[in-house]
Parts: sequence; C-alpha cells; structure tokens
Amino acid sequence: MNNVLLSHILNHCSVKPDQLDLLDSFFEYRIYKKNKLLLSEGQRCHEKFFIIKGCTNLFYLKQNGTEQTIDFAIENWWTSDFMAFQQNTASQFSIRAVETTAVLAITYEQQCKLLQQVPELSEYFHRTFQRAYAAAQIRLKLLYGYSKEELYHHFNQKFPAFIQRVPQYLLASFLGITPEYLSEIKKKRIS
Amino acid sequence: MNNVLLSHILNHCSVKPDQLDLLDSFFEYRIYKKNKLLLSEGQRCHEKFFIIKGCTNLFYLKQNGTEQTIDFAIENWWTSDFMAFQQNTASQFSIRAVETTAVLAITYEQQCKLLQQVPELSEYFHRTFQRAYAAAQIRLKLLYGYSKEELYHHFNQKFPAFIQRVPQYLLASFLGITPEYLSEIKKKRIS
Repeated sequence: MNNVLLSHILNHCSVKPDQLDLLDSFFEYRIYKKNKLLLSEGQRCHEKFFIIKGCTNLFYLKQNGTEQTIDFAIENWWTSDFMAFQQNTASQFSIRAVETTAVLAITYEQQCKLLQQVPELSEYFHRTFQRAYAAAQIRLKLLYGYSKEELYHHFNQKFPAFIQRVPQYLLASFLGITPEYLSEIKKKRIS
Repeated sequence: MNNVLLSHILNHCSVKPDQLDLLDSFFEYRIYKKNKLLLSEGQRCHEKFFIIKGCTNLFYLKQNGTEQTIDFAIENWWTSDFMAFQQNTASQFSIRAVETTAVLAITYEQQCKLLQQVPELSEYFHRTFQRAYAAAQIRLKLLYGYSKEELYHHFNQKFPAFIQRVPQYLLASFLGITPEYLSEIKKKRIS
C-alpha cells in the first residue's frame, strides 16, 4: 500500500494489518503529466483521486470560454466532482494536473466493495469529508466577507508556500480577479 | 429513536435492530423557539444538530455589526460550525432558529462513543458529509459564475418552497444583497 495514503488513513482510523494488505488492489496508481486532465467537464465521473504528490485544480468553462478555477488539491487531499461521483452522472467540472501529479484513483464501485470488506475505512472518509466541508464553510465566509484584495492577503498569510507554488493566472482565477489585478495587489504590498 | 433521524440513517447504512435501540441515549432532543440561538459565535462548539422539523440559519457578525447568513439548514440536514466542532474550539458562526425548530443534538464526545459502539454509523456520516461537500462545490461554482440576480432565479427555480419559507431579509443576506434589491428583482420578474 502506498505510504502516503496509508499514513493518512491511519491518522484517522484504526485498520488491522491484514486488512491493510487488502487495500492495494482497490486503487489504481497513476501519474498525470503537467496540464493533463484527470476529469473532463461533461464526462461521467466515476472516480475520486487521492493526491500523493503534486497539485490539481478543479475548474469549469465559463460562458465566455475562459476557465474558472474554484479549488485546488495538493498532497493528502481527495479531489473529484463529488456530486457527479456519488450520482454517477456527467461532471460539472474538469480537473487538471497543475504540476506532474501522482494519484491513487478509486471508482465508486470499487469504493463500495472496499467499504464492505474494510468497514473501518468509513470512519476515515467520514473524517476527511467532515474536514473538507468544514473548510468549505470557512471558504464561504471569506467569499462573503472579504474583498478580492483581502482574500489574497488572507491566503498569502495562511498558505505562503502554496501561493508561491501555483501559477499566478490560476491563483487569479481562484480569487476571481484578472492576472493584471493580482500583479497590482502584489506590487502594492511590496511598495 | 426519533423516526426522522432513524429513516435518514437507514437510507444511508445498515444498522442492526438491537443497535438502533442504543442510539437514543446519545442524542438530546430539544426545541428551540423562533429566533433562539443554537450556537453563539465565540462560544466553544461541542455539538452538532440534526434538524427534525424547522429551519436554522448559520451566520456571522460582520465588522459593520450586521449579520451575514452563509447557509440554512432544514429537515434532514446536520448543522454546526464543523471546524470548531471537530477541533473543540470557539465557533466562527452563530446558528439561530428561523422557525420554531426541533433538533437532536449530539456532542463530539458522545459521537465518538456512539461510533465505537455502532461503527456502521460512520458510513452514514461519510455519506451525509460527502453530499454536503458536494453541494458546497456546486455552491462555490454558483457564487463564481452567477450575478446576484441570476443566483436568486436559480434558487427560486430549484427550491421554490424554500424561497417562500424563509424571511426575505435572511434570503437577501444569503444572496449577498440588500432586502430592497431583492424586492426589485422579484418585482422585475412579475412585471
């Protein structure tokens, strides 16, 4: 079993050693080169992805043809269009590798079988989704309460390494501003 | 065991009849009169709430002293400040009964004990949080892509009964507009 996912699982629940050996066969290890798509908008979404190493962005195509990034995922995060994943429907989002990205992918059907064989993992998924939802509540608070400039400063203060890591045009999209305006905000900070 | 929660649980996981009898002692049944607070911003958040009947809003106090509603919960939804709940820290949000509201409350400690005794419930919480997170992804997409007016029309089309149910000043806050602007949007629709 991949050590990154194994550590993440064991941080959140107890699984017996003989059950851990079972896990491997349920996941598919893949590497996506930079800019490759893990999921395309409109495609049936039957997988979710655990990021072992790398970074992805979740985005959709706006009516004017530009891509709107609404979230990123890095190491130790799960990413997918979770509504489409649970309903086995067409995805409303695409997911792209921002860097060369190694993932473990699991299909909905495989996850159902895995949870039947290792039910302890439900607690792992309960905790990871509770955390993700909790983060979404705070994200909504920020979106309501902060100006775009304040949002940038907030993320820059909280996640400085991440802000440096992602391409600035994607960061601008995530913040809901143009890359030019992001440059202005950053210049203002320096001057 | 309360029938509303029982049905909700059995929709998402299998629990043996003798285990179901256990559940009752872990939850506290409460009725909050209209406008009463279930949780106050700044207060340690040690509970989450399942709405049996009624409606609550999750909000925070903006710097200008007004209340910003970021979410509602109705029958069959869980509500809390989930970051504060899982970390046992001060809440960033308040929760108020929009109508007289009946809930089942459970503390973090009681939930841990419950999941030890009835581990099947982890799958119930996994599925409910996955759905909540999936809804948050779609909510983020709407916030990025829609104007305030389009947001109103979207919610009005998707959830017409709910839009009628909540006080219009709270709906305006949730949409991020003034009550006056909400009236204008609604008038425009009729004319």
